[in-house]
Amino acid sequence: MPIMQSPPGPYTVLDGKRYLYFSGTGYLGLQGHPEVIRAACEATQKYGMGSATSRVGAGEMPPLIEVEKNAAELFGCEDAFYFPSAYSGNTILALALDGQFDAVFTDERSHYSVVEAARLTQKPVHEFAHADPDDLVRQIKTHLASGGRPLVMSDGVFPGRGDYPPIQDYCRVLAEFPGVLLSIDDAHSVGVLGDHGRGTYEHTGVYDRGVNRMADGGDGPRLFFCGTMSKAFGGYGGIIPGDAAFIKHLKDTSTYFRGSNPPPAPAAAASARALRLVMDDPSILAGSRRNVAAVKAGLRELGLTDNDSPVAFVGATIGDADHMKRMHAALLERGIYVTYRATYSGLGAEGAIRIAVLANHTDEMITQLLDTLRSLV
Amino acid sequence: MPIMQSPPGPYTVLDGKRYLYFSGTGYLGLQGHPEVIRAACEATQKYGMGSATSRVGAGEMPPLIEVEKNAAELFGCEDAFYFPSAYSGNTILALALDGQFDAVFTDERSHYSVVEAARLTQKPVHEFAHADPDDLVRQIKTHLASGGRPLVMSDGVFPGRGDYPPIQDYCRVLAEFPGVLLSIDDAHSVGVLGDHGRGTYEHTGVYDRGVNRMADGGDGPRLFFCGTMSKAFGGYGGIIPGDAAFIKHLKDTSTYFRGSNPPPAPAAAASARALRLVMDDPSILAGSRRNVAAVKAGLRELGLTDNDSPVAFVGATIGDADHMKRMHAALLERGIYVTYRATYSGLGAEGAIRIAVLANHTDEMITQLLDTLRSLV
Repeated sequence: MPIMQSPPGPYTVLDGKRYLYFSGTGYLGLQGHPEVIRAACEATQKYGMGSATSRVGAGEMPPLIEVEKNAAELFGCEDAFYFPSAYSGNTILALALDGQFDAVFTDERSHYSVVEAARLTQKPVHEFAHADPDDLVRQIKTHLASGGRPLVMSDGVFPGRGDYPPIQDYCRVLAEFPGVLLSIDDAHSVGVLGDHGRGTYEHTGVYDRGVNRMADGGDGPRLFFCGTMSKAFGGYGGIIPGDAAFIKHLKDTSTYFRGSNPPPAPAAAASARALRLVMDDPSILAGSRRNVAAVKAGLRELGLTDNDSPVAFVGATIGDADHMKRMHAALLERGIYVTYRATYSGLGAEGAIRIAVLANHTDEMITQLLDTLRSLV
Repeated sequence: MPIMQSPPGPYTVLDGKRYLYFSGTGYLGLQGHPEVIRAACEATQKYGMGSATSRVGAGEMPPLIEVEKNAAELFGCEDAFYFPSAYSGNTILALALDGQFDAVFTDERSHYSVVEAARLTQKPVHEFAHADPDDLVRQIKTHLASGGRPLVMSDGVFPGRGDYPPIQDYCRVLAEFPGVLLSIDDAHSVGVLGDHGRGTYEHTGVYDRGVNRMADGGDGPRLFFCGTMSKAFGGYGGIIPGDAAFIKHLKDTSTYFRGSNPPPAPAAAASARALRLVMDDPSILAGSRRNVAAVKAGLRELGLTDNDSPVAFVGATIGDADHMKRMHAALLERGIYVTYRATYSGLGAEGAIRIAVLANHTDEMITQLLDTLRSLV
């Protein structure tokens, strides 16, 4: 595996060589942003590595509170819960919803962390066909007695291919099941999808139904999601925004609040600053949107993908594994870094070339990527 | 909850007031160590917040490798796996051992993260009486058919009271079960217990039987443990040292390696530096040992505890909850911060006063704590 020797950004140093970098998950290009770095260093000077005690002890620190305040603002919610690793977000949600569902239905291509969370509920877990609302209904009806309450879990954006589930359809077909819950892992969506960067629910037009709320919202599924500070937002740690009652409930129930150290101070300060940057400077989200559209239009023209969503990456299977490995190597030789992943959740046997787009790629960089791909296809 | 406004250390600022601080888990006093802070800031300047891609992608970074190298050295192992949150250490171990056990037996006072890990194995889980080798054997014989292979899980040091399990006895009584595995969460032990700070196994004299190894080591249980960089070591993240084959197996099997971002660069650099400090400066571990002995001798004299182990904290139930709350408040008034926890894994209904000792407390500070306690008892 190559070793990264700079922050991930439009140019990234790997194994001593500077590459034009279309990879990773730093979709807004903030991991190396001078203000994010400065915030992290200032907090480290002031607070050291962190409180080293849980937040119900005396482990609360100002940068933690600032992340939650800024996240609440960005997501248009009353409050938020910031926790060490976004990987545990699905578990935190699923366990907080304990007692409100009788079985779990997971998309068959769900991320590992979704699968783990479903198992931890200790309720029966059933898979449904990838992104298929009809099969979802079929599985619920097959496995759940009438009146049983389903918890449906899925990725918000699937990390293998960069597709997302038909949330509108899910809401429609799930309306016949009273008390149904829908929970998505929005790690690859927050900071990217939707007008405010609120993720898949915003992009698919259902965010205003209410998300991560304590009370039942009326018809259709109650909507839940978790996000990360570690990808688009350039910081570190997991985030769940929501209404005050739900966030209080999460903090009351989650062992990650009372039984673990909070995220380290530099990660919190960096995350808080990055959230502020995204809210204060609309050109960041606009840059992501423009660049993603340009790259995907180019890839479509080359016949490499028909994915035209604003998701900031695409995983494309282009010929067989050998072909993709050769393509990957040829791009490397020409100074362009994209990823070839042989296996990942949701990928088939051949794997995929994964191309990610950063908000701070320039037009020239995008042209260089597309011209190089054209010369190879 | 109070807000911490400085690094945790012998003096710690909480809600604007500077307290003599006997709390938290920064047992070696490294969270605010100037060299740890400098290492974190330098890494942030150089690498930003981190690679924002999994380590099987292109997410490997020099500070991550340095943590693993230093941890391997401190723990006397060939290699180590460094991962985002120590909370997941038990899960990483238990899932890596999949296929090698038929049922899980957990100490009834195990930490939340142990309980979650046991559940995730999807094998039957049974509790045994706290720190009781006889009941452990009884439970295994009751629930496991002859020839069945048990995985025994426990905290290495229990965070409620600061006691630890009788590991020697466990090894003795478990020897009759072929293929038995013993896995402990050593979050509160690494950096504190044992001559090298290798934790509970070293302190109880079984470390040299071999730990976290791929191959069977002979008679008695195979020994496994996970640790943290976030407490004694002053950094952040989880750590599992082991032989090269086992660490490779962990990285091959763990979704935390292939399906999540690695720990942030400042946390990794701080952790690597703290490990180096502990190895290069024996006075740090010696200071912890001396201070812990002095505080516990004083507490014993006051009749507050009979715990005389080198564990760097003690949770003592002193009278009822109201009494402890008054005591806690009186200490606060006198400028001394200890924790009163009403509930925690392993505590009874009354909760406990928790007193933690840092390696860099001075004799005068310890005298001040004990004199103040004497005036209150």
